[in-house]
Amino acid sequence: MRILALTVLFCLFTGCASEAIDAPLEKANPVVDFGSFHIGGRDIVVKGQKPQELHLTPGVTSPYDPNGTYVAEQMYVQYFTPSQVKGRFPLLLWHGAWLTGATYETKPDGAPGWLNYFVRQGWKTYLSDAVERGRSGYALDVFQGPPLPIAKENAFTRFRIGTKFDPDPAKRTMMPGGQFPPEAFDQFAKQAVPRWTTNNDVTVKAYIELVDKVCPCVVMVHSQSGQFGARVAEARPDKVKALVMVEPSNGGTEAAKLKGVPVLEVWGDNVESDERWSANRKVVRQYYDGVRAAGGTVDTIDLPLQGIKGNSHMVMMDRNSDQVAGMIQAWLVKKGMVQ
Amino acid sequence: MRILALTVLFCLFTGCASEAIDAPLEKANPVVDFGSFHIGGRDIVVKGQKPQELHLTPGVTSPYDPNGTYVAEQMYVQYFTPSQVKGRFPLLLWHGAWLTGATYETKPDGAPGWLNYFVRQGWKTYLSDAVERGRSGYALDVFQGPPLPIAKENAFTRFRIGTKFDPDPAKRTMMPGGQFPPEAFDQFAKQAVPRWTTNNDVTVKAYIELVDKVCPCVVMVHSQSGQFGARVAEARPDKVKALVMVEPSNGGTEAAKLKGVPVLEVWGDNVESDERWSANRKVVRQYYDGVRAAGGTVDTIDLPLQGIKGNSHMVMMDRNSDQVAGMIQAWLVKKGMVQ
Repeated sequence: MRILALTVLFCLFTGCASEAIDAPLEKANPVVDFGSFHIGGRDIVVKGQKPQELHLTPGVTSPYDPNGTYVAEQMYVQYFTPSQVKGRFPLLLWHGAWLTGATYETKPDGAPGWLNYFVRQGWKTYLSDAVERGRSGYALDVFQGPPLPIAKENAFTRFRIGTKFDPDPAKRTMMPGGQFPPEAFDQFAKQAVPRWTTNNDVTVKAYIELVDKVCPCVVMVHSQSGQFGARVAEARPDKVKALVMVEPSNGGTEAAKLKGVPVLEVWGDNVESDERWSANRKVVRQYYDGVRAAGGTVDTIDLPLQGIKGNSHMVMMDRNSDQVAGMIQAWLVKKGMVQ
Repeated sequence: MRILALTVLFCLFTGCASEAIDAPLEKANPVVDFGSFHIGGRDIVVKGQKPQELHLTPGVTSPYDPNGTYVAEQMYVQYFTPSQVKGRFPLLLWHGAWLTGATYETKPDGAPGWLNYFVRQGWKTYLSDAVERGRSGYALDVFQGPPLPIAKENAFTRFRIGTKFDPDPAKRTMMPGGQFPPEAFDQFAKQAVPRWTTNNDVTVKAYIELVDKVCPCVVMVHSQSGQFGARVAEARPDKVKALVMVEPSNGGTEAAKLKGVPVLEVWGDNVESDERWSANRKVVRQYYDGVRAAGGTVDTIDLPLQGIKGNSHMVMMDRNSDQVAGMIQAWLVKKGMVQ
C-alpha cells in the first residue's frame, strides 16, 4: 500500500513533469531494480594436463587439477530498471573492441555517461561485456590465437582522440578542437582489456541468446559491435525494433534482412581524414546501401555536418556526450520507441 | 523543489517506516546514483615486439603495434547510492578467487544477492573486480606465470557445494542438506574467470588506493579477499571502521594493527570436515588470536553452531543468503555502523 502510494507520488512529482527528466542524474528517475546474469556458453572438457599443487594460504597445500569441465563463451549482462519506464522496449548497450560495458558508464572525466543518460530517460537498460571480455571471462585454451592488448599509443590515434601520443600528458598532440577531454585519456586507458580476433561468431551467438531472452528491444552498438548488432538484427529482425550504430567499424552480412529494422548511424569528426575509419565507413556505407536497396531505412547523424565539431570515436565519453545522446533519443522518439 | 518534495515524501513513506525496508527489492530504497571508475594501475612499456597487421573489417588493413605504453594493475569499481543512506559509512564488497564482483550481484538461482540486500538496507555500496579480473583487465606480459582457470569439478568441491561432480546435473552428489541450489551450479560456473597466484601485493595496493579514495568505510571480504581485507585494514586502521570476513581463506600479516577495528568472521557448514577449509580456518584462527592478544575484538557467526545448517562456501548465493545477510546487518547495527 505504501509502495503503491509512493509510485503514484513518483508519477505526480516526476513522471508527469517533463522538466524533472532534466534534473541531476538519477534523482529524476531512480533505479528500482538492478541485477545481472550470465547467458550462453558451452561446456568444454580439458584432459591430459598435469595436476599441480597451489599454496594459496601459507602452510596449506591446495590441489589444483587443470583437467575437467569448463564453461566457455558465456556473456555477462547487467540491467537497470528506472522507476518510470518510458522506452517501449528495453535498450541494450553493446561496446566495442578492447573494451567492456564500462564504455557506457561514468565517463573517464567523471561525468555521467550514456548508461546514466538513457536510464534517466526511462529505458530499462541492459549493459553487457562481450564474450571474452570483462566479467564474461575468457578461455585461453579454447579461443584461437593470443589475446591482443591495446597500447595507449594505439588507442590514442585509433580512437581519434589525438594525433601524437606521449607518455607525458603535456606533450601529447590532441585532435584540434577535440571533444575528448585531454586530462581523461589516461583514465580511459584503464578501461582497456585484451581482445581476440577470432571470436566473432561465438560473440554473435551469445548476443542472439540475449536478444531471445530479453527482447523485443532497441540495440545500440559501438565500433566493433557494429557487426554484432547488424548480424544479430539480421538473425532476429522481429525482435530488434531499432538499431543505433555509433561509429560502426563494420556492418552485417545479409543487408536485406534489415529492411524492416530502422537503423541510425552516428559519426563523429575527422572520420574521412583517417585512413582506417574512412575505409571502415566505406564498408559500412556499402552495407547500408544494401539495406536501402531492400526497402529499409538508414538515417544518419553526421555530427560535423550538423555543425557539431570535434567528436572522437568515443562519442559517449566526449564532453558533449549528453548532446549527442539527446539527438539519438530524439530519433528513438521519432521512430516510436518511446511511450 | 520537486526533488526536495520527493525526498521528503520518500522519508515519510519509506525511511520512517521500518517495514518498508522489507518491501520487495529496491522499491523500498531506490538507487538515486550509480557509476563506476578504475583506480590504481601503473604504466609499463613494451619494446622489441614485431608490429602486425590485423584485418578486423573485411578489406581494411588495420596496423597493430604491440609495442608501446600499457596500463597494468588497475582495478574496476562500481557504486550504488540508495535514496535513504543509513550506513554511517560506505560498504565495500570484495570477492574471492576465480570470481569477480558478480559474486554479490543477482544469485545464480536468479534471486537478489547481497549487493541488492545491502543497498536496500541503505548502504552506499562499492562493488569491485579485483586486479587481474573482470572489468579490471589483465596484463599477460606483466603478471608472473599463467592465469589459472577453475574447472567445474574443482569449484564444486572447493566451494563445498557438493562432494562429487558430474557433467550431468542429475548425477551429481550435492552436500547433504546443502543450501546451494543444485540447479544453479552451472549458472554459477559461468561467473568464473582465470586468476593468477602472483598478484597479491599489487591487489592490496589497488584496494588501499580505493580505501584512500572512498573511506572511512566498512569492508566486507570473501574467501581469497580475506587476506586483502586484513592487510588493507592493517595499513589503514583509521579508515576501515569494521571488517566483515566471510569464509576468509587467509588473514593478514600484522594482526596487532587490527586492535581498533571490529572484526566479524562468518562461516558456513562442513568446514571442519573439509581438509582445505579446516586448514585455512586454522590459519585464520591464529591471525584472530593475534588480533585479540593486541586488545582487538573478533566476533564469530558460525552458522551451524547457531543451528543454521548446510551453507556452502558461497554463502551469498545460498538459498538462505538473506538470513545470513540479516545476521551481518544486525552485527553492523550493534557496532554502531548504522545511523
